[in-house]
Amino acid sequence: MIADKTRHRLGTMYLRDQWYVAALSLELEQRPFSRQILGEHVALFRSASGQVVALADQCAHRGYPLSLGTVVGEVLVCGYHGFTYDCAGTCVAVPGQDRIPSKADVRSYRVVEQGLWVWIWMGRGAPDYNKLPETPWLIESDEWSSVSGVAKIEAPFHLLVDNLLDLSHETYLHNGSIGTPEVATTPLEVEVDEENRVVRVFRHMNEVECPPFYSRTTGLEGKVDRWQDIDYFPPGYYLLHARLAPVGQPPLPDGSDDHGFHMKILYGLTPSTETSVYDFWALSRDFCVGDDEIDRFLEKMQAGVVLEDVDALTILQRRGEGTFEVNEVSIKIDRGGLAARRMLMAMYDEAAVQA
Amino acid sequence: MIADKTRHRLGTMYLRDQWYVAALSLELEQRPFSRQILGEHVALFRSASGQVVALADQCAHRGYPLSLGTVVGEVLVCGYHGFTYDCAGTCVAVPGQDRIPSKADVRSYRVVEQGLWVWIWMGRGAPDYNKLPETPWLIESDEWSSVSGVAKIEAPFHLLVDNLLDLSHETYLHNGSIGTPEVATTPLEVEVDEENRVVRVFRHMNEVECPPFYSRTTGLEGKVDRWQDIDYFPPGYYLLHARLAPVGQPPLPDGSDDHGFHMKILYGLTPSTETSVYDFWALSRDFCVGDDEIDRFLEKMQAGVVLEDVDALTILQRRGEGTFEVNEVSIKIDRGGLAARRMLMAMYDEAAVQA
Amino acid sequence: MIADKTRHRLGTMYLRDQWYVAALSLELEQRPFSRQILGEHVALFRSASGQVVALADQCAHRGYPLSLGTVVGEVLVCGYHGFTYDCAGTCVAVPGQDRIPSKADVRSYRVVEQGLWVWIWMGRGAPDYNKLPETPWLIESDEWSSVSGVAKIEAPFHLLVDNLLDLSHETYLHNGSIGTPEVATTPLEVEVDEENRVVRVFRHMNEVECPPFYSRTTGLEGKVDRWQDIDYFPPGYYLLHARLAPVGQPPLPDGSDDHGFHMKILYGLTPSTETSVYDFWALSRDFCVGDDEIDRFLEKMQAGVVLEDVDALTILQRRGEGTFEVNEVSIKIDRGGLAARRMLMAMYDEAAVQA
Repeated sequence: MIADKTRHRLGTMYLRDQWYVAALSLELEQRPFSRQILGEHVALFRSASGQVVALADQCAHRGYPLSLGTVVGEVLVCGYHGFTYDCAGTCVAVPGQDRIPSKADVRSYRVVEQGLWVWIWMGRGAPDYNKLPETPWLIESDEWSSVSGVAKIEAPFHLLVDNLLDLSHETYLHNGSIGTPEVATTPLEVEVDEENRVVRVFRHMNEVECPPFYSRTTGLEGKVDRWQDIDYFPPGYYLLHARLAPVGQPPLPDGSDDHGFHMKILYGLTPSTETSVYDFWALSRDFCVGDDEIDRFLEKMQAGVVLEDVDALTILQRRGEGTFEVNEVSIKIDRGGLAARRMLMAMYDEAAVQA
Repeated sequence: MIADKTRHRLGTMYLRDQWYVAALSLELEQRPFSRQILGEHVALFRSASGQVVALADQCAHRGYPLSLGTVVGEVLVCGYHGFTYDCAGTCVAVPGQDRIPSKADVRSYRVVEQGLWVWIWMGRGAPDYNKLPETPWLIESDEWSSVSGVAKIEAPFHLLVDNLLDLSHETYLHNGSIGTPEVATTPLEVEVDEENRVVRVFRHMNEVECPPFYSRTTGLEGKVDRWQDIDYFPPGYYLLHARLAPVGQPPLPDGSDDHGFHMKILYGLTPSTETSVYDFWALSRDFCVGDDEIDRFLEKMQAGVVLEDVDALTILQRRGEGTFEVNEVSIKIDRGGLAARRMLMAMYDEAAVQA
Repeated sequence: MIADKTRHRLGTMYLRDQWYVAALSLELEQRPFSRQILGEHVALFRSASGQVVALADQCAHRGYPLSLGTVVGEVLVCGYHGFTYDCAGTCVAVPGQDRIPSKADVRSYRVVEQGLWVWIWMGRGAPDYNKLPETPWLIESDEWSSVSGVAKIEAPFHLLVDNLLDLSHETYLHNGSIGTPEVATTPLEVEVDEENRVVRVFRHMNEVECPPFYSRTTGLEGKVDRWQDIDYFPPGYYLLHARLAPVGQPPLPDGSDDHGFHMKILYGLTPSTETSVYDFWALSRDFCVGDDEIDRFLEKMQAGVVLEDVDALTILQRRGEGTFEVNEVSIKIDRGGLAARRMLMAMYDEAAVQA
């Protein structure tokens, strides 16, 4: 019952006063492109001076997508009749006359580029920078190397939340790369931090098989200790702390962990429409730093894993559009996902009251 | 008027307490596949022991299609999180815990494999085996050889009924294979057996052209006697008794018919959704028994005929979805089809009363 | 506000008592084809005697498209069950019986072939030949050579009206072929002839760049005088008088214009459905008459220009189907388009009163 209600509400509302990942940093070139975020069409580009710009993707004149226009220095020229906008969305020129109509400006969005990801504030008011996630690993350094990517899934946001909060699916859906039998069978712990709005899921697998994804990159052989500690910050940011280490060598009480290999697996969950979602991802590691070959290997493996999720969620969504009813049976592995749904529901209720 | 009403009702209801063809026997392998029958998604597979199994194609956990799972011996393992079902749909294992929730079972359907076809009972209650059609020709023997196939048509069930009950369309739509001018011009007889729920249509064409479909397979040359006797058992089973013979050599009074070549042309009409239908077919013959080359020839010809029907009905359906109205003008050739519509309407009324 | 209302009304009504372009003359062969005009499916073909015929594309029997039938001399035979129609839509034969049902006729449409274009009267009553546009240039002669083409656009009729009435878009959307900076910057004149129902837009560009489209065909080099005089006859006919000439050599007071190169650029705007439109075009020139190479060049250039419009309008339409609102800001360049919208609105109101 709760599940059905959540699904319904997740499918018909957006949480606007939030930061979402809008793009990968490497996608931003002078040639503009379009992305639909929380139902809004946004034109994204980098101006000649390097500024990342996000404007409403709709010319004030006849509604033509500005993402089909041309960037000329610090302005964007519409590709239909030439209305011209600066980086703040102010109309600075129109064809055939000098006077610029007062209503010809378009909305601009606040964006923050932070290493490999570009965040966008989708609220109507001033952005709340306290809410902006900190992702220091995404900034290239001597200690961390990262790769990133994005996929669009034709399934609603909440199906991706379900997917990422219940990693037991790795065993079945991703059994050629990151899934091993122990992911599904190892009990998990769930911690709900209402104050900070975080759902945490811990799954510490000791003396287990090392999947290809990690054996190839860490050089570990045979059995390992493999820990998965999830921090989910609803709605749009998911951080998985993965730790691989030789068996029986946990971190020391002071937190130091010389034997461990650490990977931060980040997901940006950005609703596109009510029935589609962007799945931004990044992998940051503190081993093989600067190794391009390992970069390529991880990119390829992770893209494959994400594609398996894309296929699964697309199929689920297509089925759900039919007439059949979903009467879910939930078990222990679902406790993380159910906690996330509850927290999201509370946030929707809160947003509805404020609206 | 009657036609419009029939169309409307045929498009919005299913007759559930019936046997329908669900699959060709040769489609059933261990790898499961999905078929939507009367709007319900069904996962079909053959277990390691050879049993044909039909389960609701929706895992009790998160609704993932079971047809994407894996058959392991006599059980099916879901491809998302590993819920495991036996051949009766009983959940026998879930990941991460020993206790199996009581509501985790899925529906299983009764199926009967009878020669080349697999039948499924779509009713909610116990199957009525008295209603199961008998198709002895589909079981390979010294007297009969058969070929079979299936196509899915993006048009409602009732358009396929119309098509098969009025064979005068062979002359125009199938004029390269089974159509000759006489099919359209020869008067037909219609017999409605209300008690046994059969519509019979007889078209006895004497001293007529032999179409390629039969001349190649029977060796008959020049003019022939060609009889088409249809038994339509609404909703889902259609049996055409075709007889080809030298001119003027009818069956003897005792029923023996040494000069005749006989073919049973069977159709299983299985509604998939309100706007799509499976067109299962089988051809059984009492000549050239065991001749593989004739098998291949008939398969190819019949697949071509069916494709012409698929195209025609798809086009009709697409047009009907527009705004134009169908005001049908019916003539004598339509008496079989109109009788079938009336019998179906009576069955829908009856089903509505019982529901 | 006016714009929004116009859009709404343009999207939900058709003006039926009008001539529209139905086909290019060269499309009409004995093999029939289908075209949806003002929502109605029309089968078009040329009979053996050369007559152009337009029938309702729906057999009276079971609604099968007549455009899939076969032309035999002066009749059309339906491809499903053989109902046969003459060029006036009268049913002249049905299969299996001699008596022809009285309601078996289908509607025929009045068509007029006039040079490269075929016009159709979509009204329910007798055609008004006074309304038929005169397009003498489309008839091949020693004075005029013409080329023609057609595209279908998945966008409503009114977006094509907007597009053609505001040629300032040439500068941005068609900047490789016919667009130059001066088209957008040169002021225009608008004249509304209510009595004759014509919207006229004049844009006389003197001493401007000659775009490739004209420099290649006229041989003019450097700066030229380039005039664009539009006559728009709502709803379906648009005539652009283009004049290219050496700088400072206007037509003489008596109308003679030996120094000028003239092109008539004709568009037939034929609504297909509420959200799609046929874009028929023809280019007639009084220079390089009979030059096949110039024909091919102009065909290719114009097809490219039209494709740019097709893409732009398709994109606009797709965006408009989403949730975003169009609050248009109009400027001086839009005066022609706004006048056209007002005249169309008046015509819709008039048609609504008469209906």
